[in-house]
Amino acid sequence: MAETKIPYKIYLEEDEMPKSWYNLRADMKNKPEPLVNPGTGKPLSKEELIPIFCEELVDQELDDTTPMIPIPDEIRDFYKMYRPSPLVRAYCLEKKLGTPAKIYYKFEGNNTSGSHKLNSAIAQAYYAKKQGLKGVTTETGAGQWGTALSMACSYFDLDCKVYMVKVSYEQKPFRREVMRTYGASVVPSPSETTEVGKKILAEHPGTTGSLGCAISEAVETATKNEGYRYVLGSVLNQVLLHQSVIGLEAKTALDKYDIHPDIIIGCSGGGSNLGGLIAPFMGEKLRGEADYRIIAVEPASCPSFTRGTFAYDFCDTGMICPLAKMYTLGSSFIPSANHAGGLRFHGMSTTLSQLYHDGFMEAVSVEQTSVFEAAEQFARSEGILPAPESSHAIRVAIDEAMKCKETGEEKTIVFGLSGTGYFDLVAYQKYNDGQMSDEIPTDEDIAASIAKLPKIN
Amino acid sequence: MAETKIPYKIYLEEDEMPKSWYNLRADMKNKPEPLVNPGTGKPLSKEELIPIFCEELVDQELDDTTPMIPIPDEIRDFYKMYRPSPLVRAYCLEKKLGTPAKIYYKFEGNNTSGSHKLNSAIAQAYYAKKQGLKGVTTETGAGQWGTALSMACSYFDLDCKVYMVKVSYEQKPFRREVMRTYGASVVPSPSETTEVGKKILAEHPGTTGSLGCAISEAVETATKNEGYRYVLGSVLNQVLLHQSVIGLEAKTALDKYDIHPDIIIGCSGGGSNLGGLIAPFMGEKLRGEADYRIIAVEPASCPSFTRGTFAYDFCDTGMICPLAKMYTLGSSFIPSANHAGGLRFHGMSTTLSQLYHDGFMEAVSVEQTSVFEAAEQFARSEGILPAPESSHAIRVAIDEAMKCKETGEEKTIVFGLSGTGYFDLVAYQKYNDGQMSDEIPTDEDIAASIAKLPKIN
Repeated sequence: MAETKIPYKIYLEEDEMPKSWYNLRADMKNKPEPLVNPGTGKPLSKEELIPIFCEELVDQELDDTTPMIPIPDEIRDFYKMYRPSPLVRAYCLEKKLGTPAKIYYKFEGNNTSGSHKLNSAIAQAYYAKKQGLKGVTTETGAGQWGTALSMACSYFDLDCKVYMVKVSYEQKPFRREVMRTYGASVVPSPSETTEVGKKILAEHPGTTGSLGCAISEAVETATKNEGYRYVLGSVLNQVLLHQSVIGLEAKTALDKYDIHPDIIIGCSGGGSNLGGLIAPFMGEKLRGEADYRIIAVEPASCPSFTRGTFAYDFCDTGMICPLAKMYTLGSSFIPSANHAGGLRFHGMSTTLSQLYHDGFMEAVSVEQTSVFEAAEQFARSEGILPAPESSHAIRVAIDEAMKCKETGEEKTIVFGLSGTGYFDLVAYQKYNDGQMSDEIPTDEDIAASIAKLPKIN
Repeated sequence: MAETKIPYKIYLEEDEMPKSWYNLRADMKNKPEPLVNPGTGKPLSKEELIPIFCEELVDQELDDTTPMIPIPDEIRDFYKMYRPSPLVRAYCLEKKLGTPAKIYYKFEGNNTSGSHKLNSAIAQAYYAKKQGLKGVTTETGAGQWGTALSMACSYFDLDCKVYMVKVSYEQKPFRREVMRTYGASVVPSPSETTEVGKKILAEHPGTTGSLGCAISEAVETATKNEGYRYVLGSVLNQVLLHQSVIGLEAKTALDKYDIHPDIIIGCSGGGSNLGGLIAPFMGEKLRGEADYRIIAVEPASCPSFTRGTFAYDFCDTGMICPLAKMYTLGSSFIPSANHAGGLRFHGMSTTLSQLYHDGFMEAVSVEQTSVFEAAEQFARSEGILPAPESSHAIRVAIDEAMKCKETGEEKTIVFGLSGTGYFDLVAYQKYNDGQMSDEIPTDEDIAASIAKLPKIN
């Protein structure tokens, strides 16, 4: 069989690694709608954005026409330390499932941040350094983004201030210690270091914090301190641009062995992993050069694509960030305690939202117990303990492979394994102990938060 | 510069991966002394060993003449899921150090067990399955070996019973949950499931356990249950044989780019990582084909090579295991609370002990605060958060590179990065908080435990 020549893992050579990022928006006929100033109701200009974000990143954020944007050498050098990530043929999973489908996964977890987040963190740190800044601020919930940013800032000798939601700061000390090892200052949020933090603490003395509050503190610190800017790990167009390295590598690896995927699957929270993985495939689809089924997988507890509405909304629960036109459950929506922290976002990347709205991709939602069943099955056959977020994609990849078993079709499935679950073992313990439950919002829950969408719509 | 052609990471192709393990003993003129029955004082025969260990593993344990032992296809297939491991050029570390030395590391941490332990776990599980066994038993302290064995047993559908030292079971719940996710039954030791456990619990009701006790329980369970055998993750010759895959891959990668190392460095606890890494290089040295400086690095708190004696001793603190001729601090030696759990063993592989005794390698001991300094420096420049064990090798690699900086010599240094520190963040926290200390045994401490060596010497 010629097929057995495909290795378990396809690694690219250094000279095959992408030299440019791919800007998916350039190939979109219907561009994503611009970010809007909630005060004026008008699109945010570059001038309004550069006090908060690094200047070159603002340019990338606003550029929806340039298809290929060169990756600076400094970033490519860093990529070489942990990339290319392998494209893995899931021979053992296929065998366990008894499916004729061919399953591949692009594994982004082989770095100390444990996920794909590092791809954008290093780019954002680079542009901050290039601009001559002293440092950057950000917020982190579960901690993957904060870890990635700490590593990137350490590499470029930038100061890194991470506002970590207090409950995570206390309950996830390991993530916190990784960040500290990389020299970041990690502040439990709300804190006394900002005006907004002090105000929240005065009003709610015992609060354990929220991502919305941590964002507010990070933005305040960035804007009030000379030489600092705020950076963000998902949702934004610039992040999807940097993450396109995932899809570009995957496509090169597939092309090298003449493999044509039928289905491409990724989990979606804010869209950074999914947008990065599908970018070049979606580009071919938009240009009419190829067709793929592209499936976004989201948690049933936070189903922005499948049960949200396509409208302008705040990106943060604190309602201080710009408005974005996206699939949203409403910025006041509070998802139930799902263990995939990275997917607990009420909205979605504007780019992916537009593509979904225009029918270029599908979306499904899955319940977390079935996600952990898939995670366990994957861990036992493929050896890698997956992140709960990534396991959403595994769930649907297995479901599609089992459909192939019924029909006998030999479809080729590619999914994104965006990270490892080494820091999610509290969730695995719940699953191992049979104590995991599924809580799905009612129609009334969603209607209530959508009713509070800002007036601009 | 021709040199820049060497990629950051050298990955072998699947067809370049080793097809046989290398049995270093075959090239030794002075063979390691045999394991001895403490009751009879005579070398243990195959017949005495097979009730405890799998039969083919006993053959490997006793074979000191066959140089190359083929790796069965089933094991090579599993290796392909997480190997080859990369040989990485530490460009960024070199730059930070400002050294003319060229530093390479062989990184074994990119798998869910987080270390090289999986290389032998999968081999031992395979031979157990081939023998038609139901399952295997083992002990684990820090949990790396237990995790690796759980993964291997899950792959071959073998039952896996892990006796985990009670204090680790309670304080390291994450390792425990990884093992459970892979289907292992993890029992806190001492337990009520064995006679020896019951006895210890009756005598010391509040005990938090010890590795010696966990070994006793694992051995009892293996010998008293039909279809079970006991397996061990270090010290034994068979383990060094399986781990030779590390060195063989490293050597192939170096040869591919015509790189000739001057110094090879590995951390040493029981010897599995060091023995595996150096195997083919030591082989060349023994055959007079090449010369290398080979350096074993051990913690100053448990310095078996540098301050122990070369004598027959028990392999376990419980004194139920066979006697081995090795460098030892005495089986009653209790190292201080060093955070490199995998290096807290009083003895050393018999093979490595003989080689050290015969002058084929050097050994140095290092203190843990200086080890964590090196770990932090490495993490910040190379991106990988190293295991405390592996960081011992990093410490000496940096020291040697700094000597090159003084002399201007462009030496080539290869060291083994045996694992990641994702489950060691309590230790990193101590270091980050400035609360780590160095406790080094006195000469009297060591003399006292060496005085209790068994009479056979």
